[in-house]
Amino acid sequence: MRDGLKKFTNLQDANVINLAATIDHTLLRPEQSTRQRIEQLCSEAQRYGFASVCVLPRWVPLAAELLYNTPVAVCSVVGFPLGGNLTLTKQSEAAHLITAGAQELDMVMDIAALKSGDDRAVLDDITAVVETAHHHGVIVKVIIECSVLDEHEKVRAAELVSTAEADFIKTSTGFSTQGATIEDVRLLRRVVAPSVKVKAAGGIRTRQQALALIEAGAERIGTSAGVAIVSDTGVESSALY
Amino acid sequence: MRDGLKKFTNLQDANVINLAATIDHTLLRPEQSTRQRIEQLCSEAQRYGFASVCVLPRWVPLAAELLYNTPVAVCSVVGFPLGGNLTLTKQSEAAHLITAGAQELDMVMDIAALKSGDDRAVLDDITAVVETAHHHGVIVKVIIECSVLDEHEKVRAAELVSTAEADFIKTSTGFSTQGATIEDVRLLRRVVAPSVKVKAAGGIRTRQQALALIEAGAERIGTSAGVAIVSDTGVESSALY
Repeated sequence: MRDGLKKFTNLQDANVINLAATIDHTLLRPEQSTRQRIEQLCSEAQRYGFASVCVLPRWVPLAAELLYNTPVAVCSVVGFPLGGNLTLTKQSEAAHLITAGAQELDMVMDIAALKSGDDRAVLDDITAVVETAHHHGVIVKVIIECSVLDEHEKVRAAELVSTAEADFIKTSTGFSTQGATIEDVRLLRRVVAPSVKVKAAGGIRTRQQALALIEAGAERIGTSAGVAIVSDTGVESSALY
Repeated sequence: MRDGLKKFTNLQDANVINLAATIDHTLLRPEQSTRQRIEQLCSEAQRYGFASVCVLPRWVPLAAELLYNTPVAVCSVVGFPLGGNLTLTKQSEAAHLITAGAQELDMVMDIAALKSGDDRAVLDDITAVVETAHHHGVIVKVIIECSVLDEHEKVRAAELVSTAEADFIKTSTGFSTQGATIEDVRLLRRVVAPSVKVKAAGGIRTRQQALALIEAGAERIGTSAGVAIVSDTGVESSALY
């Protein structure tokens, strides 16, 4: 873990970090998610070399069609943004999305179960989605919604995400009271298993913010401001696209 | 429709309206939805004679167990609160919830489709859930999220909800920028089919607000402040419990 972080930091210091490749180009507000905006999102993701587009489930078939045979992954969300669905429903949603063409799934943890002290339910819920996804080579990011958790709960959540062998732990949905903070990314990077990466999301508007979150340990950035972030004038930008 | 409204208003004027019986006693914030709070919610709903408890899907099995053989219905949510799931997933979620014991389902309309002008997709999405629910004698309320729609879109949404033969049209999720307004309830009551009832939800904190929304045409009130609303001193309260 420490080595990975150090290596990443060195890359950033050397100004060779491919910032665009860390970005999930995200549009999840339904009132803004018109067909036209999703088409634009997919086009921008290819142009700027973003890691993925992250869209509402109902747009996965369109995004998968538009991004077929491109390096841009189709990412969508499961049990989003409250995480309070039945586990069976989350598992079904994951399966439906994979069938529709999703390659990455950002699921919301069962926050209500964590708050109730039912760690077993939290774990089973994550595991059900992870198993379904991994069976199809699809990666899972687990959103723990840091803004509604205290430090002990964040640590418990990180342990459960590690036990479930998810691919990423993600700070926030972007639909709660606060988004990603440097402190949360640092904490999660410290307590989560070395094999689990950290995704920072929610309220990330500037290149400076994105770089600071990467410095703190994030390997993926979820933002709807990806174009502004990579278009910002800076030493690195010339290497980005 | 007019007659129904007038009758209801008269009931209110006569101070014999059973306000409690119009209330969906609601707790949907995952960070507040601990097992203990859900148990309390179910107990209050019985004590005060609320129409239903409205809980996150993951608590439906518990609520169904606690409210077995009582007049209080178990209500839950489908595709909540963004409405951007695949139709297949909404339909599956509805089926899972019915199996788990839900008797009322509040689904969120496919807002992104409406915003894209794809009325057919909006209609098919509602119809899929309504058919699944009605097959099991379960009622469906369709949340159109008024706060993100302009007046033309609200009218279109109301027409689609009418065509799909849903049981209720509901103003808001309570998770957007604004909740129920008198104007929206009046508008929806005017444009929706006579067979479709109106549910007002979001930001309803006082008895005065609840009564004004009923006066405007609402026949169900979704609120987390049900106990405060019916406990408020007033002529009617003695008749309520």
